[in-house]
Amino acid sequence: RFGEVEHDDLVGVVTGLAWTEVGGELLTIEGVMMPGKGKMTVTGNLRDVMKESISAAASYVRSRAVDFGIQPPLFDRNDIHVHVPEGATPKDGPSAGVAMVTAIVSVMTGIPVRKDVAMTGEITLRGRVLPIGGLKEKLLAALRGGIKTVLIPEENAKDLPEIPDKLKNGLEIIPVSRMGEVLEHALVRKPEPIEWNAEMQAEAALADKRAEAGASVAH
Amino acid sequence: RFGEVEHDDLVGVVTGLAWTEVGGELLTIEGVMMPGKGKMTVTGNLRDVMKESISAAASYVRSRAVDFGIQPPLFDRNDIHVHVPEGATPKDGPSAGVAMVTAIVSVMTGIPVRKDVAMTGEITLRGRVLPIGGLKEKLLAALRGGIKTVLIPEENAKDLPEIPDKLKNGLEIIPVSRMGEVLEHALVRKPEPIEWNAEMQAEAALADKRAEAGASVAH
Amino acid sequence: RFGEVEHDDLVGVVTGLAWTEVGGELLTIEGVMMPGKGKMTVTGNLRDVMKESISAAASYVRSRAVDFGIQPPLFDRNDIHVHVPEGATPKDGPSAGVAMVTAIVSVMTGIPVRKDVAMTGEITLRGRVLPIGGLKEKLLAALRGGIKTVLIPEENAKDLPEIPDKLKNGLEIIPVSRMGEVLEHALVRKPEPIEWNAEMQAEAALADKRAEAGASVAH
Amino acid sequence: RFGEVEHDDLVGVVTGLAWTEVGGELLTIEGVMMPGKGKMTVTGNLRDVMKESISAAASYVRSRAVDFGIQPPLFDRNDIHVHVPEGATPKDGPSAGVAMVTAIVSVMTGIPVRKDVAMTGEITLRGRVLPIGGLKEKLLAALRGGIKTVLIPEENAKDLPEIPDKLKNGLEIIPVSRMGEVLEHALVRKPEPIEWNAEMQAEAALADKRAEAGASVAH
Amino acid sequence: RFGEVEHDDLVGVVTGLAWTEVGGELLTIEGVMMPGKGKMTVTGNLRDVMKESISAAASYVRSRAVDFGIQPPLFDRNDIHVHVPEGATPKDGPSAGVAMVTAIVSVMTGIPVRKDVAMTGEITLRGRVLPIGGLKEKLLAALRGGIKTVLIPEENAKDLPEIPDKLKNGLEIIPVSRMGEVLEHALVRKPEPIEWNAEMQAEAALADKRAEAGASVAH
Amino acid sequence: RFGEVEHDDLVGVVTGLAWTEVGGELLTIEGVMMPGKGKMTVTGNLRDVMKESISAAASYVRSRAVDFGIQPPLFDRNDIHVHVPEGATPKDGPSAGVAMVTAIVSVMTGIPVRKDVAMTGEITLRGRVLPIGGLKEKLLAALRGGIKTVLIPEENAKDLPEIPDKLKNGLEIIPVSRMGEVLEHALVRKPEPIEWNAEMQAEAALADKRAEAGASVAH
Ligand SMILES: [Ca+2]
Ligand SMILES: [Ca+2]
Ligand SMILES: [Ca+2]
Ligand SMILES: [Ca+2]
Ligand SMILES: [Ca+2]
Ligand SMILES: [Ca+2]
Ligand SMILES: [Ca+2]
Ligand SMILES: [Ca+2]
Ligand SMILES: [Ca+2]
Ligand SMILES: [Ca+2]
Ligand SMILES: [Ca+2]
Ligand SMILES: [Ca+2]
Repeated sequence: RFGEVEHDDLVGVVTGLAWTEVGGELLTIEGVMMPGKGKMTVTGNLRDVMKESISAAASYVRSRAVDFGIQPPLFDRNDIHVHVPEGATPKDGPSAGVAMVTAIVSVMTGIPVRKDVAMTGEITLRGRVLPIGGLKEKLLAALRGGIKTVLIPEENAKDLPEIPDKLKNGLEIIPVSRMGEVLEHALVRKPEPIEWNAEMQAEAALADKRAEAGASVAH
Repeated sequence: RFGEVEHDDLVGVVTGLAWTEVGGELLTIEGVMMPGKGKMTVTGNLRDVMKESISAAASYVRSRAVDFGIQPPLFDRNDIHVHVPEGATPKDGPSAGVAMVTAIVSVMTGIPVRKDVAMTGEITLRGRVLPIGGLKEKLLAALRGGIKTVLIPEENAKDLPEIPDKLKNGLEIIPVSRMGEVLEHALVRKPEPIEWNAEMQAEAALADKRAEAGASVAH
Repeated sequence: RFGEVEHDDLVGVVTGLAWTEVGGELLTIEGVMMPGKGKMTVTGNLRDVMKESISAAASYVRSRAVDFGIQPPLFDRNDIHVHVPEGATPKDGPSAGVAMVTAIVSVMTGIPVRKDVAMTGEITLRGRVLPIGGLKEKLLAALRGGIKTVLIPEENAKDLPEIPDKLKNGLEIIPVSRMGEVLEHALVRKPEPIEWNAEMQAEAALADKRAEAGASVAH
Repeated sequence: RFGEVEHDDLVGVVTGLAWTEVGGELLTIEGVMMPGKGKMTVTGNLRDVMKESISAAASYVRSRAVDFGIQPPLFDRNDIHVHVPEGATPKDGPSAGVAMVTAIVSVMTGIPVRKDVAMTGEITLRGRVLPIGGLKEKLLAALRGGIKTVLIPEENAKDLPEIPDKLKNGLEIIPVSRMGEVLEHALVRKPEPIEWNAEMQAEAALADKRAEAGASVAH
Repeated sequence: RFGEVEHDDLVGVVTGLAWTEVGGELLTIEGVMMPGKGKMTVTGNLRDVMKESISAAASYVRSRAVDFGIQPPLFDRNDIHVHVPEGATPKDGPSAGVAMVTAIVSVMTGIPVRKDVAMTGEITLRGRVLPIGGLKEKLLAALRGGIKTVLIPEENAKDLPEIPDKLKNGLEIIPVSRMGEVLEHALVRKPEPIEWNAEMQAEAALADKRAEAGASVAH
Repeated sequence: RFGEVEHDDLVGVVTGLAWTEVGGELLTIEGVMMPGKGKMTVTGNLRDVMKESISAAASYVRSRAVDFGIQPPLFDRNDIHVHVPEGATPKDGPSAGVAMVTAIVSVMTGIPVRKDVAMTGEITLRGRVLPIGGLKEKLLAALRGGIKTVLIPEENAKDLPEIPDKLKNGLEIIPVSRMGEVLEHALVRKPEPIEWNAEMQAEAALADKRAEAGASVAH
């Protein structure tokens, strides 16, 4: 087949939550990885702050790669494209940061994302989850959209008493303070850290050389 | 001959559908592939959202290359130019996404596009077809322009009851939800998936080296 | 001599036709080719749409190179500069497309352009000639400027009945629908297609290597 | 573990002090270092003057590398990302310069930053600390945020008599005139200068070559 | 000496003529050549049209290099900087084109420019001199500035009858239609064309390789 | 020590003179040189004209390198950063040109700048010093700031009669017309010209190759 069938839990597809003038909304974040040279492309009518949150997400993942089971040379051998449909709507703000990290970890590890989990939260370079605005509107959108579990920043837990019971009963709301907790809830399985040392780095470099030179064929 | 005669079903030429203040209109999308280094050029007085939809279309094709029968090294050995005449008219929006994918798959596989098919729909990085606006106006333009078959997003099927019978009788309207269905209807034959493994990659790399070095001549 | 004398029919110099608020005007398009690395420079106070039409013209020529007798490696070994005097006047629009193609084919083949031919028409990536505005004003400018033959888009032929007889008697007006016809009328001789195969490509690559390494001297 | 636990004194995380229309505020500055090619990324909704202060901080550190115990080749083998959460707030001005230097020295030496120290001051390329505005508001924010020690520019010491005693009693306020003093107070231990000579440079270059070529594996 | 004394006729220093709201003015154009990689820098508060006229001037010289006695590899082994003091005044327009060509030919051939010659005229890629505005004001500025000879575009000769006799008696005014005439009058001696063939190109390439590799020392 | 103590006469630190709406002011210009690849960075909230004056200063120094005792390969082996504190103040205009040249010559030769000398003047690519505005205000700022000697453009000497005696008695005011004179007064010792020939260039290239390859270690 040259087309593709979507499975329930997809690699690289994450549900974020947006808050606009007209209320909350589900925000699909899509990542794909392609053979390449380490280029990062971001599209979807994104304004600067959201673009920067993807940049921060990528640096966080790169600086922690082995903790997520990602071999560091993968970053140089592939291009990554993060896209946020729907192109007609401008999107901004830092609150999709945790979803961006989740999308990038998912495409680079091949671990699918649970389709019934949504999330919101700014991310720092160290993996801390910072608070966001529009919590109620976002939870409403999540419930409306059939989401079962919503990950929210720990620092927003103080806003939960004011959230209507209907929302709190209909959704499992999990406050998180660090990216590790996000991934534990959002991915269908936990990424396994790998060991990575100078010898493995050298082997990877050698493999790259060989691939480039077509050496395995020439011999 | 240094000129060229257009055949009925052309490689790289796709009919999209635009919706502007003055109604619907046919939108020709042209792609050509040239020996190069992987550069993508887009022209035709395109605004940012349409440019981004070409970027997303290209990443979708690259990430699914083997499913479409495209050898991955082709992307690095060629430049692609996507142009949307007529240059005097600014063009924007994501709804030409499926046409962009079709144009790129057509130039890279050499499979011609059926000249009597038009299409509209935003594309995601995973090949999903998202809904668009201006359905009636676009269908009118298609009928007026001699189109026989129009591919529309599945999610726009709910708008069909409000479409005048004249249009529905004059056109075969096919709702599609995934890019695979689009290509099945739009290309004169189905792309055949290929196998691609590390050894083939190495052979391709070696061939590139030889071509660069002029080795086949020197020996 | 370090200066140069203009001959009647020049390589790379094409007469286009512009239409501005104050009427029609001859538009000289100049191309030069220099030893280089494939860079394309465009100057002459050009706005975006005219710049894009040069980009489309260049891709059209590159993708059809062998049909025009141009060895593909020529594109990588040379820089091309397209300039439109007079620098004080901003210039825009897609209607100089056919003149841009003609200028590029002329500099790359070394075939001069007939000095008494003017032309107008948007070009597509596939070499189709699209209609333009301001036909009457452009024909007036051509007559005034001593032009003998004017190439116009086939789709503008329907406007000819409204053109004053004085213009139609003073000018040979040739409707054209494809770039091949343009070149047949505009160049002093027809470009001859060449054969180009993998072996020739390899020989060219080897020659490039040798030129770079100064090999013919070292041996 | 694929997540991470924050320790009290972190590498690359520095507390700056901002002064806005609504008063003073703690400003977290985060740096991470990743295997790379010497690229510097700065994010966090930063305006030009703050971006330039990171550029000046980086050049100061690079030009003094051996004094800080940083091997010069480290700059070419790594990418550095400096991020200032929270992305929703635009940030500008040169007064975070000393914090930027501290963050960069910390990530490159691996020496943690004392978490109860905050700092403010513009930095020059030679490591001088220049005066800033909003001293009172910044000290208030520091006290409110649980900071114990605040480093201020020596030239602002003249403003201390006007600072309320409550602030001066609650905080250890240390005027500093040069970057060396800042690092002495802010890092958990003093960076040790290293020797660096042509032979060491050559060994580093050789090691890079070997790493690139995978030589230690091939032999 | 680390300073330098200006000689009467300098290499790379050309006197142009500007026409602004407040009258005509002498415009010094300075070019220098430095060992480099073919980069062109232009400074002096120049607006786009003047920048483009330098680009056109450079392409004209490159495409005619051997006619001016310039070895083509010189372009890749050097950087050129064209500067127009005084930085506080914005400068625009194409009329300094001939002066730009003269400056570039002078720095690349080492032939000084006559200090008592001023010039005005737009240049085309083929070396034609196009007409300019403000002739009277420019001639006034030339006389006031001690210039003896002024080169003006042939097409402006029709304006000479309206020029006051005082100016025409005080200046030698030479209408020119092609760049060759300009250089004949402006340089202290005529550039001598050189022969340049494939073998010389190969030798130059070999010399470059050797210089890069330090080969003459290693042997 | 990882900090640094300022000596009286510093390498790369030059005192310029600015003239703003609120009067004259001392302007510190700082240059540092770092191992690199020939990149030039300029910061300090500089507007375009001041940025261009640094570019012109750098080209002047590069084109005269051997006259200043600077080995030409130094430019490719180092990066230079020129910074003008204080970042909160926008700075523009060409009048810091001579100070920019002085800073660059100082960092590249290692010769310190006299700390009690200030200077103002636009620089040309040929080292001429052009006149500036605000002479009185600048001299006032110099006196107030403890400067002993001020270098001014020769063409501003005509303004000295109108300068108050208090300023003329308190400062040594030296009119200069060329960059050589500036450096003679501003640097603690005169740069010594060096010889530089093809053999030295080749040796330098070879040394670069060896340093890159780590050859002195491998043998
Ligand atoms: Ca929506
Ligand atoms: Ca928790
Ligand atoms: Ca139309
Ligand atoms: Ca369907
Ligand atoms: Ca005209
Ligand atoms: Ca015809
Ligand atoms: Ca805050
Ligand atoms: Ca102190
Ligand atoms: Ca002036
Ligand atoms: Ca003449
Ligand atoms: Ca100040
Ligand atoms: Ca003097």
